[in-house]
Amino acid sequence: MNQNYIIPNEWSIVEEGFDTTKVKSSESLFSIGNGAMGQRANFEEDYSGDTFQGSYIAGVYYPDKTRVGWWKNGYPEYFAKVLNAPNWIGIHITINGETLDLATCKKVTNFRRELNMKEGWLARSFQATLPTGMEVKVNTKRFLSLELEEVGAIEYTVTPVNEYATIEFSPYLDVAIINEDSNWDDKFWEIVSTSFDEKQAFIHTHTLKTEFHVCTFMESKVFIDSQKVYQVPVKKISNSKIAFTYKVEVAPTEKATLHKFAGYTADRNYRKEELVIAAQKTLEKAVNMGFNDLLELQKQAWLKIWNMADIIIEGDVKAQQGIRFNIFQLNQTYLGTDPQLNIGPKGFTGEKYGGSTYWDTEAYCIPFYMATKDQQVARNLLEYRYHHLDKAIENAEKLGFKNGAALYPMVTMNGEECHNEWEITFEEIHRNGAISFAIYNYYRYTGDYSYIPEKGLEVLIGIARFWQQRVNFSTAKNKYVILGVTGPNEYENNVNNNWYTNYIAKWCIEYALESIEKVKTEYASDYERIMAKTNLSEAEMLHMKDVVKNMYFPFSEKHQVYLQQDGFLDKELITVADLDVSQRPINQKWSWDRILRSPYIKQADVLQGFYFFEDHFTDEELERHFDFYEPFTVHESSLSPCVHSVQAAKLNRMEQAYTFYLRTSRLDLDDYNKEVEEGLHITSMAGTWMSIVEGFGGMRVEDNILSFEPKIPKQWQGYSFKVNFRGQILKVSVDQYDTKFELEGSKELEILVNNKTVIVSPNNLITV
Amino acid sequence: MNQNYIIPNEWSIVEEGFDTTKVKSSESLFSIGNGAMGQRANFEEDYSGDTFQGSYIAGVYYPDKTRVGWWKNGYPEYFAKVLNAPNWIGIHITINGETLDLATCKKVTNFRRELNMKEGWLARSFQATLPTGMEVKVNTKRFLSLELEEVGAIEYTVTPVNEYATIEFSPYLDVAIINEDSNWDDKFWEIVSTSFDEKQAFIHTHTLKTEFHVCTFMESKVFIDSQKVYQVPVKKISNSKIAFTYKVEVAPTEKATLHKFAGYTADRNYRKEELVIAAQKTLEKAVNMGFNDLLELQKQAWLKIWNMADIIIEGDVKAQQGIRFNIFQLNQTYLGTDPQLNIGPKGFTGEKYGGSTYWDTEAYCIPFYMATKDQQVARNLLEYRYHHLDKAIENAEKLGFKNGAALYPMVTMNGEECHNEWEITFEEIHRNGAISFAIYNYYRYTGDYSYIPEKGLEVLIGIARFWQQRVNFSTAKNKYVILGVTGPNEYENNVNNNWYTNYIAKWCIEYALESIEKVKTEYASDYERIMAKTNLSEAEMLHMKDVVKNMYFPFSEKHQVYLQQDGFLDKELITVADLDVSQRPINQKWSWDRILRSPYIKQADVLQGFYFFEDHFTDEELERHFDFYEPFTVHESSLSPCVHSVQAAKLNRMEQAYTFYLRTSRLDLDDYNKEVEEGLHITSMAGTWMSIVEGFGGMRVEDNILSFEPKIPKQWQGYSFKVNFRGQILKVSVDQYDTKFELEGSKELEILVNNKTVIVSPNNLITV
Repeated sequence: MNQNYIIPNEWSIVEEGFDTTKVKSSESLFSIGNGAMGQRANFEEDYSGDTFQGSYIAGVYYPDKTRVGWWKNGYPEYFAKVLNAPNWIGIHITINGETLDLATCKKVTNFRRELNMKEGWLARSFQATLPTGMEVKVNTKRFLSLELEEVGAIEYTVTPVNEYATIEFSPYLDVAIINEDSNWDDKFWEIVSTSFDEKQAFIHTHTLKTEFHVCTFMESKVFIDSQKVYQVPVKKISNSKIAFTYKVEVAPTEKATLHKFAGYTADRNYRKEELVIAAQKTLEKAVNMGFNDLLELQKQAWLKIWNMADIIIEGDVKAQQGIRFNIFQLNQTYLGTDPQLNIGPKGFTGEKYGGSTYWDTEAYCIPFYMATKDQQVARNLLEYRYHHLDKAIENAEKLGFKNGAALYPMVTMNGEECHNEWEITFEEIHRNGAISFAIYNYYRYTGDYSYIPEKGLEVLIGIARFWQQRVNFSTAKNKYVILGVTGPNEYENNVNNNWYTNYIAKWCIEYALESIEKVKTEYASDYERIMAKTNLSEAEMLHMKDVVKNMYFPFSEKHQVYLQQDGFLDKELITVADLDVSQRPINQKWSWDRILRSPYIKQADVLQGFYFFEDHFTDEELERHFDFYEPFTVHESSLSPCVHSVQAAKLNRMEQAYTFYLRTSRLDLDDYNKEVEEGLHITSMAGTWMSIVEGFGGMRVEDNILSFEPKIPKQWQGYSFKVNFRGQILKVSVDQYDTKFELEGSKELEILVNNKTVIVSPNNLITV
Repeated sequence: MNQNYIIPNEWSIVEEGFDTTKVKSSESLFSIGNGAMGQRANFEEDYSGDTFQGSYIAGVYYPDKTRVGWWKNGYPEYFAKVLNAPNWIGIHITINGETLDLATCKKVTNFRRELNMKEGWLARSFQATLPTGMEVKVNTKRFLSLELEEVGAIEYTVTPVNEYATIEFSPYLDVAIINEDSNWDDKFWEIVSTSFDEKQAFIHTHTLKTEFHVCTFMESKVFIDSQKVYQVPVKKISNSKIAFTYKVEVAPTEKATLHKFAGYTADRNYRKEELVIAAQKTLEKAVNMGFNDLLELQKQAWLKIWNMADIIIEGDVKAQQGIRFNIFQLNQTYLGTDPQLNIGPKGFTGEKYGGSTYWDTEAYCIPFYMATKDQQVARNLLEYRYHHLDKAIENAEKLGFKNGAALYPMVTMNGEECHNEWEITFEEIHRNGAISFAIYNYYRYTGDYSYIPEKGLEVLIGIARFWQQRVNFSTAKNKYVILGVTGPNEYENNVNNNWYTNYIAKWCIEYALESIEKVKTEYASDYERIMAKTNLSEAEMLHMKDVVKNMYFPFSEKHQVYLQQDGFLDKELITVADLDVSQRPINQKWSWDRILRSPYIKQADVLQGFYFFEDHFTDEELERHFDFYEPFTVHESSLSPCVHSVQAAKLNRMEQAYTFYLRTSRLDLDDYNKEVEEGLHITSMAGTWMSIVEGFGGMRVEDNILSFEPKIPKQWQGYSFKVNFRGQILKVSVDQYDTKFELEGSKELEILVNNKTVIVSPNNLITV
C-alpha cells in the first residue's frame, strides 16, 4: 500500500491536513463528474504549487498526431486524446489586496476535503494565515449538477478571523488551456466569440481539427452572511479570459460568500450557432434555482442512483468506502443515456490513455450497468460498437483482411484505432472476442434477444470472419493455429496460440454460426437483410465450421492445464512468492524483454477465459488452473484482482478473495500503482462490483435462471446489493447466518440459491 | 529494378540529361567523402528545386531526444544522429545579375555528371538558358582531398555562349543548417565566432549538448581563361553566413573560373581554441598547392587505394561498375586510420539511421578491411569495441544483467545504445555474437594473436557472461533455452530459440573459455591482469561449460534442418515464388503482425550461422538448409544477397550466385529498395566484395591455410582481386580456363587451391 491518507468513512472520501505532495493525488481522488462533464479537484482560487489542472467534456477529443519511434504500416495517424477543456471553476481571490494562494500562505490549518458520495458534492475548508499575517477561514462546496447536466455550481465562503477585510472575488473563465499529455505542443482550442453582459459571461470556442464547439459560461452572486449583495462586477477581458470582480467588506467572523454557476454547452446537444443562447437559458435556470435548491436536487438524484446501485457492507468501513467510491465514480463517468459516449479508462479524472473505449467496457463494465440500471443502458453500449462496425471493417482491411472481416480497435473515440504499439494495436486481437461476448452476455442477462437480429448479428459475423481469416493451418500440428498475438496478459507479446485468444476465437465463430441459424429460423426478414448486406457465403461458413472443429489449444499433460501460450513451459517458472520484493512492480523495475521472458502475468489470461466461460469448465479444472497461474500473477493491471477475487470466492478461498477485493476496491484510494495523480482507474471499478456480486454473492445466469451462492468474508458482518434482473429489482442481503431476498417487481422470480430452487415473490422477504 | 539511369562505365558513375525527379537520388549516388568528411552531390550554385542537402563530419553527432509512443524501461534517452554540418560548397552565382538556378532555367542541355572513382573526383557540366535568354556553359569539378583531409576543393567555370557577361561568384559558408531526419525541431549548431580577412573566412561553431567544435572555412581564387584575376571580394556577413563576392566580365567562349577551397577543422584533431588558426594553416597549404596540384595528389592517393583494393571484372561492365562503386564508397567512408571512427550504415551520404556502428561492421565490413588494408585497420575496428566495453556492461546492467556481463548496443556512436524499439534494442542480442566472432576472425585471418591477451579477452569474457546469464534452463526441454529474441531476420520478433542466436551464444562461451585457457598458458601476466579485473569465478566457468553442453537447438526431423525458431513450422509455408508480386516488398505492403507471422525472411538467419561457421557443417547440410530457407527469403535487407551469393557459389549454383551478386553490387545504383534518395547502403557494400572474393573466389582461411575454390559466372571473361594475407599481397586472377596467383612479398606462401596445396613464391606467376 503506497499511501494511506484517506480517512475511512462509509459515505465520504475525506482528507485532513494540507500536504503539498498529496495535492495531485487528491485532485484525482476528489474528482467530480456528471456523465456529461468532469472536473479534477483543483482549487478554485489561485494555486502556485504543483498541480494538474483538468476539466473534461464528454465526447470532446482531439486527434493528437501519433508519435512513434519507428513507423509501421497500418498505424493510425492520429491518436484521439481526451481534451482538457476551458476552466470554469476559477475564482481569483484577494483579501486586503493579497492573493489567496495556499502555496504562499504562512500557515494552513484545519485543511479538510470531503467528497460526499451519497449526495454528490465536494467540500473543502481550511484556515489560512496570509503572508502579511491576515487570517481567514475558507469553506467551499461544489458539484456538477445531475439535474442540469451542463452546470457546475460553487459556493465559496471567506471569513476573516480577527480583522476587517476587503475581499475581492474574481470568478473567471479561461480558455488558454493545454493538455499535460500531448505529443506535440499543439493548440487545441480556438476562440469563436467572447460575449458578456452585466451578470453573465460566455466564451464560445471550437477545437481545431475535430471542430467540436463548446460555450463556457458563468454567472455569480455575492452574499454577506447569506444576505445577497447587489453589485455590478468590474470586468476584465483579455484574449482568452473573462474575469468579473466583486468586492465586499466584512468584519471578523462575518462570511463573504460567492456562488458561481458555470459550465459548458456543447454541440453534442445544440447547433453551434445556438450555444451561447442555450448557455444563457441554462444559466438563467440555474441562477433562478440558486445554489441550495440545486444542491437539494443533486442529493435527490444521487439518492435515486444509490437506491439501485448501492452495496452495503456491514462491519468493514474501508471495504464499504471502497465499493461506494467505485460505484460513485462509475456513475460520475457514464450514466448510459447517450449511445455516442462510452466509459473512458480514466473517466473525467485525467488525460492518460487516449480514446474513451477499450475492451474494458465489454469485459468489465457492461455487467455492472446491466445489473444497476435499465437494460437500455447496456444496449446503448452495444450499439456504440454497432455504429463503429464499418470502421472496424476498414481497420481490418488495413491489416490485410477482407470481405467484411472486422477488427475493433484496441482504443477508440470514434471507431478509429488510436493506439500505436504493434504488439497491441495489431496483435492484442482478443479484444474482438469481448465484443461478441458482450452481445451474448446482454442477451443471457436481460433475456432481450431483439438486439441480435436488429444489429448484433452483423457484428458477430464481422468478428467471426476476422477469426476465420486470422487463423492458419499448421501442417506440423494438423490444427488451426493463431500465431503472433498478445493475450490479456500484456506481459507476453507476439506469442503463438495464446489459449485465451484461441478459445474465444473459436467461441466467436461458433456463436455467430449459432446466431445465424436462430435468426434464420426466427427472424426471417432480418436474416435476409443481413445476408444481403454481409454476403456471407456457404464456403465461408464451411471453413468457419472447420476452424471450430480443428482449433488448436496448447495443453500440458504433465500439469493438466491449458497453456497460456506455446512457449510457456520453457520459462523459468519461479513464482511471485519467490521473487524478491525489490523487483516489483516489474513494469517499473525491469526492461521489457525481461518481463516478456519471465513467467509473470499482468492480469488474468487463461483465467479470463475461465471467467467468461465458467460453465464450460468444472470446479476442479478451475482450481487446477487457478493454482497453476495465480502464483505467477503480479496483478499489475487494475483489471486483475477482480477476476481473481471472483474465482477465489468460487473456490471458497475467502481470505484470498477478500484480499483481492480490497486491492480492487481501494486501488486508487490507497494508490497501489503509485500513479493516482494521473487520474483514477475508472473501468476497473466495475470489477469491484463484480467481486461482490459475482464473487461473494456468487451471482450467475445459467439456462435463463438467476442463481446465487452467497459467501461472506469473515471481516464482514453482512453485505447487501440489488440487481435489476429482466426489469425486476432483487435485493440480496447476506450475513453470517442466512441470505435474504426481496423483490421489487410484479412477477414471481424463480432463482437458484446454492443449487436449490427458491421462489421469490414481490415484496416478500425470503430468508434462505 | 527501379531505376536504370546510371550509364555503365568501368571507372565512373555517369548521369546524362537533367531530370529533376532524379536530383535527390543522384545527390546520394554521386556523394564524395574522404573518411574525415563527406558531401552529398548537391549543386554548388542555388537550386530551388527539390533537394536533400547534406554535409557530414566524421564523428560529429547530436543526441536527438528519443521519441517513442510508449516508453519502456531501459530505452536510451537520446538517439545519436549523424549531423548535417555547415555548408562549405555553396557558390551563389549571377550572370548579368540573374541568379543561376537549374530549377528556373528555360532550358538545360548536355547535363552530365561524372563521379570518377579511379581518381576520386566529381564533375558536372551543362549548358543552360537563363530566364532572360542568356546562354552559359558550366563546368564544375570537386573533390574531398585525401592529402589534406580537412579540405574540399571546387573548380567552377562559367562560359557565356554568345554574349558578354558579368559573372558574380559568391562563394559562401552557411551554418544555418538543419537535419532532415530529426525528431524535434532542435537547433543543432551554435556560432562561437565569425572571422575573416581579405581572402579567408571562418565560422567557428559548436554543437549543442555534444559540444563538438568545428571551424568551417573558405578561400577562393578567380580566373579568366586560366589567368588569375586579382580581386578583393565584397563581403557580406549575416547572422549565420559569410559570402565573398567576386565579379568578372567575360566575352563569349571566355571562361570565368572560381577555385574554392573550403572545409572543416574539428576538435577531434585540435584544441578548440586552435581551430581557426588550424584552419588558416590548412587553407594556406591548400591554396598554395592550388586546385590542379591537389587534384594530382588526389589521383595518386586513390591509385594507392585501388592498387590494393581493386577488383577487375572482364566482359561485364555493369558488374565491374558495381563492384568498383562499392569499393570506392567504402573507402570514402572509412579509411581505418582513427579508432574513434566507424562505418556508418549510410556513411556520409544521408542521415537515416542514427549512430555509426551496427553489427554490420563486424559481420560484413571487417573481412573487407582485413584483406584490402594493413591489418592495423581491422584492429582499429576491434579496438573501437574494446573502448566501449564499459558502456556495454552498463547497457547490460540496465537490462538486469550483472557482474560484468556485456551487451553491445544495436546502434551506437559513443558506446551508448541509440535504438529504441524493444524488439530490437532489447532482443536483437545476436549482435553480441558478431563482436566475439570478429575477434576470432581477425586472429584467424591475420595470425596476430596479440590482440586477444591485450584487449580481446576482456570483451570475450563480458560477452560470454552475457550469454551465460541470458539463457534459462527449461525443465520442459531439459536444456538451456534463449527466450524472446529477434534473430538476424528482423521479420520475426520475440521468438524463442532462434537457432542462429543459440548457436552463436554457445560458440561465444566456448571461444571465451578456450581463449582463457590459451592466455593462461601462453600469456600469464595478461591472464592475471584480466582475471583480477574481471573477477571471473570458477562457478561462472562451470556454469558456462554446462550451458555449452546443454544448449537447445530447434531441429526438424521431418525436414532435417535446424529451425529458425521454435514456432517456424507452424507458419503457413508458402514460398516467395508463390507470393503475389503485388504484395512485395512486404515491408511496404503489409502490417507488421502479418509480416511476423509469415514465413518470409528479411535476410540470412540460419544461413548467417552457416556463413560464419561454414566449417562446422557439411556441404550437404548447407545445401539442405539453403534449399529450405532461401525460398522463403525476400532479401529486403541490403545485407541479404551477399551471404546468399557466397553460399550459392559454394553450392556451384553460379547463375543464382551471379544474380545475387548483381543485386548486392548494384543495390543503390539501380535503387532496388526505392530509397537511394535517403543515402547509400554503405556497410552492405562490403558484402559485394565478399561475394566476389569469398563467393566466386572461394577464399577461406582454415587451419591457418589460405584456400581458394575459384569459379566464374558465365557472364564474365575473367576477374581478379588482391588480398593482404598476413602482410603479403596475393593477386588472384581467374578466367574460364585457369587461375593465376602472384605474390608481392618476401616469403613463399602455401595455399590450397581446390583442395590441392600450391606454393606461391614472391613475384612468380603461378598458373593452376
